[in-house]
Amino acid sequence: MKLKLFYLFVIITIAVFFSCTKRLDVEQGRKFLLATDSAFAELSLEMGADSAFYYYLADEAIQLPAGANPIMGREKIVEGMKSRGIPYTLDWAPKNGKVAQSGDLGYTWGSYTFSQKDSSGAVVNSYGKYLNVWEKQADGRWKVLVDMGNKSPAPEK
Amino acid sequence: MKLKLFYLFVIITIAVFFSCTKRLDVEQGRKFLLATDSAFAELSLEMGADSAFYYYLADEAIQLPAGANPIMGREKIVEGMKSRGIPYTLDWAPKNGKVAQSGDLGYTWGSYTFSQKDSSGAVVNSYGKYLNVWEKQADGRWKVLVDMGNKSPAPEK
Repeated sequence: MKLKLFYLFVIITIAVFFSCTKRLDVEQGRKFLLATDSAFAELSLEMGADSAFYYYLADEAIQLPAGANPIMGREKIVEGMKSRGIPYTLDWAPKNGKVAQSGDLGYTWGSYTFSQKDSSGAVVNSYGKYLNVWEKQADGRWKVLVDMGNKSPAPEK
Repeated sequence: MKLKLFYLFVIITIAVFFSCTKRLDVEQGRKFLLATDSAFAELSLEMGADSAFYYYLADEAIQLPAGANPIMGREKIVEGMKSRGIPYTLDWAPKNGKVAQSGDLGYTWGSYTFSQKDSSGAVVNSYGKYLNVWEKQADGRWKVLVDMGNKSPAPEK
């Protein structure tokens, strides 16, 4: 009888522990994914967007670019980014996101700034939003599964 | 000793069962979410896009519309859709998606057709893509958390 009670105690303890850690994990997961997205943006500024996308996109990633057809696969996405004639910088900042309770799927969204020099050499900015779906890989790293963007009005000053 | 072996057998059986059903659930979840998105599109054709969005959007949904700032909350999103002057139809079809192993978060993406009559009464179509993030609600229903779209070239005929 004592043994049964002991087992019951152990089971309840484990159940409570998991129900608590799950909620904590979701919030920690969200923060971690936002930090990952920020690190992705930093790498874009340091190494160029194409290199950053090569590093952070899943092999089977899909890009849904404004005004164009979907681009399937990391290789083709990065190829398309490299083939832009004029150099550019792409910077962004996540606003929010969420991670599934199982910690394998999540999303981030935020705003981006695309900067390119015009023919006079002046930097011209264009602004937009993005929505990224992320999946945790077998090695534990989060990678982007779907990348979509569209334009926004210039931010108010 | 026999009892220990029996417990070991039970634990292994349960582990195998869960590892199998999990994979099945993810695939079934994906199919179910695609079917839900298709039902959402059907409702848009039957009742109008604003009614369908009212039904399928989470209260705290975010819309990321092309060329405009994010719209926060279902009420404001539907309000914006209702305030369009000229009647329109919005139809779409999901191409693919995924559901987390925990079955609480997922996404769908696909192509849409937006149809509106011009001043002569002729129907003018414009085409685009969308990416929706979905979350399963407490009552078991999937609802859209984030809705983003952008334009695509007209499909080849």
